[in-house]
Order: sequence, then structure tokens, then C-alpha cells
Amino acid sequence: MTAPGRHLFTVGREKTEERGIMGGTVENKEWFLSSYVAEGVPTSEHLKIRTVRVDVSVDSIPEAHVAVQILLLSVDPYLRSMMSGQKGGLDLPQLEINQVVSSFGLGRIIGSKNMHYKSGDLVVSPFFPAAEYCVTDSIFLRKIDDKDSQIPLTEYLSALGIPGFTAWVGMLLIGIPKPGENIYVSAAAGAVGMYAGQLAKIKGCRVVGSTGTDEKVNLLKEEFGFDDAFNYKRETDFDAALSKYCPNGIDIYFDNVGGKMLEAVLNHVNKHARIPLCGMISQYNQVWSNREGVRNLLNLVGKEVKMEGFLIGSHIHRRGEFAAEIEGYMKQGKIKSKHQIYSGIDSFLEALASIFSGSNVGKVILQLSK
Amino acid sequence: MTAPGRHLFTVGREKTEERGIMGGTVENKEWFLSSYVAEGVPTSEHLKIRTVRVDVSVDSIPEAHVAVQILLLSVDPYLRSMMSGQKGGLDLPQLEINQVVSSFGLGRIIGSKNMHYKSGDLVVSPFFPAAEYCVTDSIFLRKIDDKDSQIPLTEYLSALGIPGFTAWVGMLLIGIPKPGENIYVSAAAGAVGMYAGQLAKIKGCRVVGSTGTDEKVNLLKEEFGFDDAFNYKRETDFDAALSKYCPNGIDIYFDNVGGKMLEAVLNHVNKHARIPLCGMISQYNQVWSNREGVRNLLNLVGKEVKMEGFLIGSHIHRRGEFAAEIEGYMKQGKIKSKHQIYSGIDSFLEALASIFSGSNVGKVILQLSK
Repeated sequence: MTAPGRHLFTVGREKTEERGIMGGTVENKEWFLSSYVAEGVPTSEHLKIRTVRVDVSVDSIPEAHVAVQILLLSVDPYLRSMMSGQKGGLDLPQLEINQVVSSFGLGRIIGSKNMHYKSGDLVVSPFFPAAEYCVTDSIFLRKIDDKDSQIPLTEYLSALGIPGFTAWVGMLLIGIPKPGENIYVSAAAGAVGMYAGQLAKIKGCRVVGSTGTDEKVNLLKEEFGFDDAFNYKRETDFDAALSKYCPNGIDIYFDNVGGKMLEAVLNHVNKHARIPLCGMISQYNQVWSNREGVRNLLNLVGKEVKMEGFLIGSHIHRRGEFAAEIEGYMKQGKIKSKHQIYSGIDSFLEALASIFSGSNVGKVILQLSK
Repeated sequence: MTAPGRHLFTVGREKTEERGIMGGTVENKEWFLSSYVAEGVPTSEHLKIRTVRVDVSVDSIPEAHVAVQILLLSVDPYLRSMMSGQKGGLDLPQLEINQVVSSFGLGRIIGSKNMHYKSGDLVVSPFFPAAEYCVTDSIFLRKIDDKDSQIPLTEYLSALGIPGFTAWVGMLLIGIPKPGENIYVSAAAGAVGMYAGQLAKIKGCRVVGSTGTDEKVNLLKEEFGFDDAFNYKRETDFDAALSKYCPNGIDIYFDNVGGKMLEAVLNHVNKHARIPLCGMISQYNQVWSNREGVRNLLNLVGKEVKMEGFLIGSHIHRRGEFAAEIEGYMKQGKIKSKHQIYSGIDSFLEALASIFSGSNVGKVILQLSK
């Protein structure tokens, strides 16, 4: 195995010229945490980019390690919860100051001292750095079998990645939808919401989604097959909106937002409703004591509702089952995806901020190379 | 079968002289709703007592009905939720103005036109009127087999009644305690709390309870075998109290109170904790929009906590299993009860109010005759 020189190699399904590799080292831009984000959305004050050189020559790769060019990075709301400097509701480890941000990503092996990987292999990892290259051990890598696959690489970060798995766990393992039930999904045009809603449709439910623009309302109904959808920013009274859009009550609320919407939902739950709590994007940018509380939890008693938080890490042993099911739906055209692609490592911060402004549609992906 | 005349008959295990039966009719005091309770604790403005005459002679009893002298009435917090005039979080039917309050009770048949019941039989019903006598059909009656039983009649309203069954469903079916787990019970010296805690002890857990007086703290530790207990009225900071009394976190929180205590608990839950929501006594006397909200539900996600409301009606098919298990523990001396007995129908309102003032200890029971 030789060190990657200045040659053409395949990225995704396109051939591109490798940039910046000089004598075994590459110029590598990486995002790091400069200061903690007490409240609000991360800005250039908190996240900064720097250029380092990384030696990716085989001689310098440690035993059992590989060198990876990162092609795609997943940009997800939970990243915000690692930047506040104190463990929050998601209970995630906090980045150190100056530590490189990490995220789920897809890359190509460009050098290997690990017998299980060779140059050209495509791999995903939940812990790639927000950078263009890395040298890493293989413990978190999973090889993608790209042969004969009709699946676009971006789907490994989306329908087959964290969002798809999150939707599958929350909707199917916790929500357990039954045909004819009434489902409501908030942040429904987001990365997780679009799959959560489509999975419930596949299971024979009536599915309603909310989102933040009229364009996304149309997307939900026309592209993703939701039975109905509404723009929550146009609704001054969530309670009235739910009476209108969910006239038969709610059997499963797939909660992506928390706060006032969750409170409104609790006035519309049916007997024995289930509320998988996936995350609460309305809550991430505030310190908890400033948040608006949910005042009607007593409704959980009267309607005998189960509300359950989940993280996909606890269900990782079911990943194979998930992937087989979703790939099946994809082949049958039953699952559609919408991706918002940002280009180049410089765009990482913009991509992350877009999630919280609601300007994104579908899964936000950063494409580093194509 | 003859109409009950003016004779001695057995009430509970004591012989008492029957009062007030004249020529087949009895003088009967009953509590009715005079006006809805918008907020706060019910007072004599809302609940009034009146005297009516009821014909309990066999000739006047409708076919398949029985006449009952009510001996014991269960006084429970949920009754408050039927008096506000609008369906609240417990989703209970509302009393009509002038309607007689009804509750779980124990009575003795004093006249019967039902072949399955004879005078002298002891019966319980979830829907006896808050009155001294009634003529009722038998649909909700259940006969108590009193022969050879060492069980005091009050236990049929307590360990073997609604509180015991509620504790059993919440702790064992929803909480599912495992040996060595850390359990916290609020309102722990109340009717449900005392059994919830003792059941968790039987299952090998470390159990901590909170209550509202130092006397009840002692009761929890010395009588009911709780590992630790605290007086929540002495704790200005619930968060700090839970750090102190639940140093290993909380695996099951048996919630009887809701509100600020629930919020504090969510800062102390362990991974995969369960929160059976039994009721929220801190919330019943307020309109919901005035309640303090729970602001840290996001913690349910990070700790993957299940919070589940329940009503015993959905588990009624398991009553036999419950009764067998609890009777077994009672015979082994593993379950103890504390009852606060109020005497006479006139005391119903005082008994009900005591639940909300926290002045009661254990199960509040109204004894109408002895």
C-alpha cells in the first residue's frame, strides 16, 4: 500500500482531483470550539476554522489506523448540545475549548495500516472530525458496501443514517403505530421528521405534520404524502390548530420540538397515546431555567399517555434490522428524502445555524468533496 | 326475605343498633355538589349535606337491586377532579349540580331482590354515594368473603382497595422495580405512597419518601421501613434535597404530586428511569394555565426516561392477581397500613379537605357506622 500521491481518485461516484496533498501531508481545515455557547445559536465567535497539516502517508499512520478523506458530514441539532459547556438535557459530553467538532460522516480511505480497510473503501463513522481529512483508528468505522447499490451516498447520512435510524426507533419501536391511528409530527420537514411521518404512512396511519414555511407544508403533502400539514408560524393558537388539523385527536406525537407545542399536544392526546421524545429543538438554545414549562402534564394521567425519551445509541444492536427495512422501502419507492447540501468545509457553521433558523429543508449535509 | 326492622345487626365485626329505620324507610344524609370548585379546596360552599328518606323495604326495592347500609367510604384526591365542572387532566366525568358525590365504599346488604345477595353480606363498590344508605343495582358490587379472614374491613378500602391497587399497578406494572434500584416516592405517607414504597422495599430496592411533617417522616422510616425520608416543607431547594437523600440518583419516581417536585426529580433521574404518574395532588386545585410548568422535560431524552400516566380502570382485569399478592404480603406482615378514620357522614367534607392540607396520615376513611 502506498501513500496517496497527487493522483485522481474516486469520491462518491465521481472522479475528482485530490487537493492539497504534498509529500504525504495534506492541508486540512477543521472547525473547533473557541468559546462555549451559553444561550442562542452558535456563531463565528464560538466556532472557528483553522488550517493544520496532517500527515496521511502510510509510514506515518499508526498501526491499525487509516487515513480518511471526509466526503460528507452530517449536520444535526444535537451538536449544539455539546457546545454549552455544561451537560444539558441530552446528557451529551461537552467539547473542550479548542477541541475539534465531530459529527457523523462518510469518507474514503486514502491510506491504511489496517488489514480490513484498503484505499478506496467507503466508510461511515459517528465521530469524524468537522474537517477534510483525518487519521483515525477503525473502532467506529463501518464499511459501506457500495457495489451494485443504487443508493446515493448522501442517503447513508440521511435515510440510512442518524435521522432515518432516529425516526425508525422513535416511531416504530416506541410509538408502535397501528393502522388507522392519528399521528402528529413536529419539525416534520426536518431530517428526522420527514422519515418519521413517512414510516407512519407506510404503517397505515393518518399523518399530520407541522413545519415553518408554506413551501415546506407543500413538500410534506405533495412529496412525502402526509395527509395534512400546517405552518406553525401562521398559527397563533396551537391548540386551535391541532383541533383543526387533528380532529380525531392524536395517538402518537413524534416530538422534535418540545415547549409550547408539546403543551398544546397534551390537550389533544387520545387514550393510551404515545409520545416518543426525540429532541426538543425549541429548547436547545436556552438555559433550562428560562424555558417555558409544560403545565398540563396531568393530562398524561387522565389519558394514560406514555411519554418516552430515547437515544439511538441504546438501540444500536437493531441497526441491521433498521437498514434492511429502510433499504426495502427505498427500493419500493416508499421513502423519499430531501437534502439540503452545503458545499465545502467553510460552510459548516452556516449549515449548523440553518437548522435552528428553520431555513433548512430535510437533512442538512455538508459536502466536502465531489 | 323480610324488610329490616328495628333490630340489632352486625356491622363490620361489631354489633351495633341500627339507627333511623322507620316503617321501611330510613333517614339518609347525603353529600351533594352545590356549586363547582373553580380553584382551591372544596368548602361548605361547594359541598352540602341534606337529609332525605330512602325506602329500603324489600317491597320497594326494584328487581335485581339491593339496599345497602354503607359502613365505610374511601376519601381520595381524585374526587376533587370531578367537582370543577370541566374535564381536567384526570379526564373524569364531572358531577352535576345537586348530584350526590360518589366514592368507593364498603357496605352491608340490608335488603335484597337479587338472588346473589342476602342481608348481611358485605360488599364493596367503586360507586357508593357519599351517604349512609342506598338502593342500588348490583352491577358494580363485589362481595367480600369475610369468613375466617383476619383482614380488618378498613383494608378493603386501603391495602386491598383503590390505594393498594393503584400502588401495585404503578410500581409493579409500570415502574417494574429491580433489586438494588433507587426509588423515590412523593406524598409517601399518603394512601397510595405508603404502599408504593413498601412494595418497592419488598422487591429489594432502596426507597426514599417525602412527606409534609416530621411525624410522617418518622412513620415512613420506622413503620413502613423506608430507607430514608424527608419533610419537603423543610426543604427550600428540592434539587439539593434530592442530591442529599437520593445520592445514587433515581431509577423510579412514583409521582403523586407533579409540579416543582417533578421538575426537580428530572434533574436526578438515572439512565432508563421510569416515572409512573399516579396523580398530581399539587395540581388539582389550580386551573391548568395558572400552574407552574415543568421546564426540563428535555432531560427525559438524554436519560431515556419513560414517564407514563395510568388509571387503575385499565388494569381491572388484573385485580385478582393484585389481591392475591397483597393478601400474601399482609399475612407475612410485609405490608403495613395507616388509616386516618373520620367518623360519621357529617365529617365527609373535613376528611376530603384534609387530603389537600396534608394533615392526613395514610389512607383517609370515613366510618359511617360501627
